[in-house]
Amino acid sequence: MDLVKELDRKDPAGLGCELHGFAWGLYPICRSITGEGIRKTLAAIGNVIPLELVDVPTGTPVFDWSVPKEWNIRDAFIKSPAGERVVDFQKLNLHVVNYSTPVHAIMPLSELKAHLFTLPEHPDWVPYRTSYYKEDWGFCLSHNQMLALPDGEYEVSIDSTLSEGHLTYGECYLPGRSADEVLISCHACHPSLANDGLSGLTVATFLARFLSDLDLRYSYRFLFVPGTIGAITWLARNQEATERIRHGLVLTCVGDPGGFHYKKSRQGSAEIDRAASHVLRHCGEAAEILEFSPYGYDERQYCSPGFNLAVGCLMRSVWGTFTEYHTSADNLEFVRPQQLAGTLRVCVGILDVLENNRRYRNLNPYCEPQLGRRGLYCSTGGEVIPEDVNARLWVLNLSDGEHTLLDIAERSGAPFRLIRDAAEALSQAGLLAPVADEREEASVSDFGT
Amino acid sequence: MDLVKELDRKDPAGLGCELHGFAWGLYPICRSITGEGIRKTLAAIGNVIPLELVDVPTGTPVFDWSVPKEWNIRDAFIKSPAGERVVDFQKLNLHVVNYSTPVHAIMPLSELKAHLFTLPEHPDWVPYRTSYYKEDWGFCLSHNQMLALPDGEYEVSIDSTLSEGHLTYGECYLPGRSADEVLISCHACHPSLANDGLSGLTVATFLARFLSDLDLRYSYRFLFVPGTIGAITWLARNQEATERIRHGLVLTCVGDPGGFHYKKSRQGSAEIDRAASHVLRHCGEAAEILEFSPYGYDERQYCSPGFNLAVGCLMRSVWGTFTEYHTSADNLEFVRPQQLAGTLRVCVGILDVLENNRRYRNLNPYCEPQLGRRGLYCSTGGEVIPEDVNARLWVLNLSDGEHTLLDIAERSGAPFRLIRDAAEALSQAGLLAPVADEREEASVSDFGT
Amino acid sequence: MDLVKELDRKDPAGLGCELHGFAWGLYPICRSITGEGIRKTLAAIGNVIPLELVDVPTGTPVFDWSVPKEWNIRDAFIKSPAGERVVDFQKLNLHVVNYSTPVHAIMPLSELKAHLFTLPEHPDWVPYRTSYYKEDWGFCLSHNQMLALPDGEYEVSIDSTLSEGHLTYGECYLPGRSADEVLISCHACHPSLANDGLSGLTVATFLARFLSDLDLRYSYRFLFVPGTIGAITWLARNQEATERIRHGLVLTCVGDPGGFHYKKSRQGSAEIDRAASHVLRHCGEAAEILEFSPYGYDERQYCSPGFNLAVGCLMRSVWGTFTEYHTSADNLEFVRPQQLAGTLRVCVGILDVLENNRRYRNLNPYCEPQLGRRGLYCSTGGEVIPEDVNARLWVLNLSDGEHTLLDIAERSGAPFRLIRDAAEALSQAGLLAPVADEREEASVSDFGT
Repeated sequence: MDLVKELDRKDPAGLGCELHGFAWGLYPICRSITGEGIRKTLAAIGNVIPLELVDVPTGTPVFDWSVPKEWNIRDAFIKSPAGERVVDFQKLNLHVVNYSTPVHAIMPLSELKAHLFTLPEHPDWVPYRTSYYKEDWGFCLSHNQMLALPDGEYEVSIDSTLSEGHLTYGECYLPGRSADEVLISCHACHPSLANDGLSGLTVATFLARFLSDLDLRYSYRFLFVPGTIGAITWLARNQEATERIRHGLVLTCVGDPGGFHYKKSRQGSAEIDRAASHVLRHCGEAAEILEFSPYGYDERQYCSPGFNLAVGCLMRSVWGTFTEYHTSADNLEFVRPQQLAGTLRVCVGILDVLENNRRYRNLNPYCEPQLGRRGLYCSTGGEVIPEDVNARLWVLNLSDGEHTLLDIAERSGAPFRLIRDAAEALSQAGLLAPVADEREEASVSDFGT
Repeated sequence: MDLVKELDRKDPAGLGCELHGFAWGLYPICRSITGEGIRKTLAAIGNVIPLELVDVPTGTPVFDWSVPKEWNIRDAFIKSPAGERVVDFQKLNLHVVNYSTPVHAIMPLSELKAHLFTLPEHPDWVPYRTSYYKEDWGFCLSHNQMLALPDGEYEVSIDSTLSEGHLTYGECYLPGRSADEVLISCHACHPSLANDGLSGLTVATFLARFLSDLDLRYSYRFLFVPGTIGAITWLARNQEATERIRHGLVLTCVGDPGGFHYKKSRQGSAEIDRAASHVLRHCGEAAEILEFSPYGYDERQYCSPGFNLAVGCLMRSVWGTFTEYHTSADNLEFVRPQQLAGTLRVCVGILDVLENNRRYRNLNPYCEPQLGRRGLYCSTGGEVIPEDVNARLWVLNLSDGEHTLLDIAERSGAPFRLIRDAAEALSQAGLLAPVADEREEASVSDFGT
Repeated sequence: MDLVKELDRKDPAGLGCELHGFAWGLYPICRSITGEGIRKTLAAIGNVIPLELVDVPTGTPVFDWSVPKEWNIRDAFIKSPAGERVVDFQKLNLHVVNYSTPVHAIMPLSELKAHLFTLPEHPDWVPYRTSYYKEDWGFCLSHNQMLALPDGEYEVSIDSTLSEGHLTYGECYLPGRSADEVLISCHACHPSLANDGLSGLTVATFLARFLSDLDLRYSYRFLFVPGTIGAITWLARNQEATERIRHGLVLTCVGDPGGFHYKKSRQGSAEIDRAASHVLRHCGEAAEILEFSPYGYDERQYCSPGFNLAVGCLMRSVWGTFTEYHTSADNLEFVRPQQLAGTLRVCVGILDVLENNRRYRNLNPYCEPQLGRRGLYCSTGGEVIPEDVNARLWVLNLSDGEHTLLDIAERSGAPFRLIRDAAEALSQAGLLAPVADEREEASVSDFGT
């Protein structure tokens, strides 16, 4: 199946707006690595795709870590000496340092300032701060806002709880013909940050929706997890299941106006690395391929040496390198409909390679077969060979049972789509036969989920 | 044996003119993939070298193809309303679309035009067209010629036959000490086209003449075949014999003023690929090495996956990229004596590498031997080491039974000639001994031809 | 142990002057490949480090060579017709062609000139010439000096002897925990040449002094040998011992103001090649890595195919490429204290890599361990990860028992020092364990010296 054509057929236009609208609905929710915020978010995703929610109790050991306390927050504010809510959680949830312990106190500005965070270099932006692993409280506000605070006594209130509870993540499993899996993972723990958070889970949600009623080679597993601890928790609970993961992608920062970046898996030349590099080379947008490094998003965990999964990370701008990163400026004006749709399209292109990448055997390996009498050669006698005929010659020449279609695409320089179409046309003409995979793909019925 | 020196000894000067003159004699013949034209051409080649002519009947199945009907033509013309032969096959055989079916008719210009081919962008040139696999007829003429045609009734005549007959090719086999073969192949089917056709068969003919009385390591097989169908026919009739082909070259477009292009075999790093690249790097002319692709000349067939022979393609300008390609401007002014001779020299250089490439073992592997007392070190005490001494040090250092002389030439950056001379001098001094080839070369007597 | 820190601790400042001063003391001695000059030089080295002197008799066969006669010289001069010593060995030993046979004669200038060598392009410099393997005599002088010689009869005297004796070399062995050895070799045969000769043996001497009281992984063998024949002699007498040499460096021309050059061993990607390349990439000075070639210094012998030892050559300017090479201008103004100390520091850096390069196994291979609670993660929550934390993540990620610390340094781009410190910190935290070397290192007690 040509997944890209299928995407065009099903979602011809307005796809970007649909994606952006979905992100819009999730934007105000105060997410964190645990608590009601992430559960509300997962519920919204569950309205679009079949999603299983998993609750793991506080204190559960997960490899070298343990599941933290659950954090919930109802309200928070700083009241000025005049009694005005000068910093108000209801207006923007970034105002509270994520995972802040509860506080209700009156204190002079001088004392309060030790709990305030601003960005002097961007005086109108509010920074994003967390204190997951050290119990503390604080507020984030714009630098100009802080400069305007008069001296005096301030009422400070954070109506939060940090207590025994659960870590919650969402899992969407789409069975394919084989039990071998493709993993798509994104973090769902960031509050009102649009690129670093919402963009990834939005694209993942619509990718799952798109795939959900197709007849697919691979099974697909989508994870919506709190960053780091969520991936670790899932891996700890599913250690054996990871053996079925053949390819994977972490999606993050995929909605901004920047060009694409694909960070390779630790393996470095896994099929996902080659497929992503190939699709980005031909996608028509600027794209850069980055070597693996052990710092980043949840590919850190999937690519830890004990797992060493073939999981790369697809981004537009790289986290930490754009000025809006981890500030209130990472909002839904920074993330654009067209970029979200473009990323979805690239993801579908990558999966199209994985789904259709096979080895074939040329059934006529001695000399070229006579394509002309089968209507597969140049119809006109022009001097320049058409790209479809060229692709057929490449497929015939390299289909010796060793080269995959992706190998042929890479060596010929032609986009995978042309090579796959050539293989299809040649197969239909009886000139090519698929070769059984050396690794017998297990069928879903053998394993279940 | 130093083949290049041998060439200089035997053909000191005027070689280019001799080559060009030979091409001149063949230029007017109306060749095609079958028929009297190619047989006349092969007869002329047979006057210079021992050539076996093979006739294969129309309809003989050759892999996925079958041998086509034989085409012969005696005359063709277009007569103007005034009765003048305005397009005349006797003046230039390109005027008739090659493989045209017979026709004799009177028709108005408007109807005739559907059968006329011109090159508007080169209004004085006549294009070259064929219709091998679809029965049709047509004329080629210059664009200006066509514009000058007055309205009216034209007499059109093509006195050709397309009927049962034979496909004919020529084969020249030169036995060497080993039955392992070097294949040299060129197409002999193009009519009055000098670079794309005559240049290759001219260089091949004189290369065979040069080799014919030398004591050679390899056996050489020269094929003069109609393009595509000729190579396929030969391969179909000689499938088992291809196992003896260790190296091969297709020669085409080797007489124009452009720099060299060598297109690698499908294997990509076969000895012929490395030898050709090495010789071209040191040949003193511009040269470019191209990766294999399955579109081109008869290397398409030799490199089909069932054969996968180590056959590359040597060109000057690449077919299809020079404006004269497949037009009447690809004539004997475009092809020059000096370029033909230069190509012959490069071919001889490549064969010199193949003939002399061996592994040696340094009989004094611990520390350097004292070259000085053998007269093999610097005679003067200058600071810069002479290139011959440098070559000896490289040969001694890398002659561990693993590295071939070509390996040493590549790693040292020295031309093969210097490395081969160094190996000879060191062998004579008793410092080096040849290593038996891991693949025992079969002797000619075991196989015959 | 961090060898570079240790060097800073032991020799905080003034190291360059100490090295330069040592060279100063050796400068006037008339060294040659045999004789009192080299013995005096070795005696001076023996005052700084434990040095065994080995005397090998003239005529002893060493592989393809034999030990030459011993050359000694007491005085030499050319007296002008006026009786003045116009060329005087006592002023500069380069004035006599090294290995000159004795002569005492009176001859006209015209006859004398056949024995005079000058450098017309540097008219104030005296060239350096030898005649080791052909018995002859001669004088070197500045071109201006020669032009000033009046016609007339000259008294010529070389009070030398060339007779049965010994070739002498020095060897300093420093046992480490393993009997596996690192070889450091330099030539000690050049007379008053500072960069080509003294710089290497000076750095080698102080490197041995620095290492002599440290607890080291490897055993170290320092060779101070006459060039070519000395290395050949040592190898002939120690053929079996070479199997214990795991890494080696030839030091030459290491005191001039040029940037570094490291010429790789014949193996090309031996650990010494990678360690030297890595350290030079991070050393803060210009540095170039050169491919192996069989011409140069004693790496020619160590890398001959029978030995093929992992021995590279560390230089600043490459011999033969700087104008002062083999002239009186290669003196102690050309060689600078700072450059000598910088080379010593680079050598120590390279040995630090060899000493500390190991494989580790991450004891927590599934997901990242929680570095934060061990005080090994970012203390502040800044956006940019500190280089020490980054190094820890790399070490954890790649410590799968396959990758060495040098592999990790190369792949991460971080300097080895950071990677080694990270491995140490992680080991202390119980997160990492060293992996036994696949090649069991023999202990010194098994072999002795």
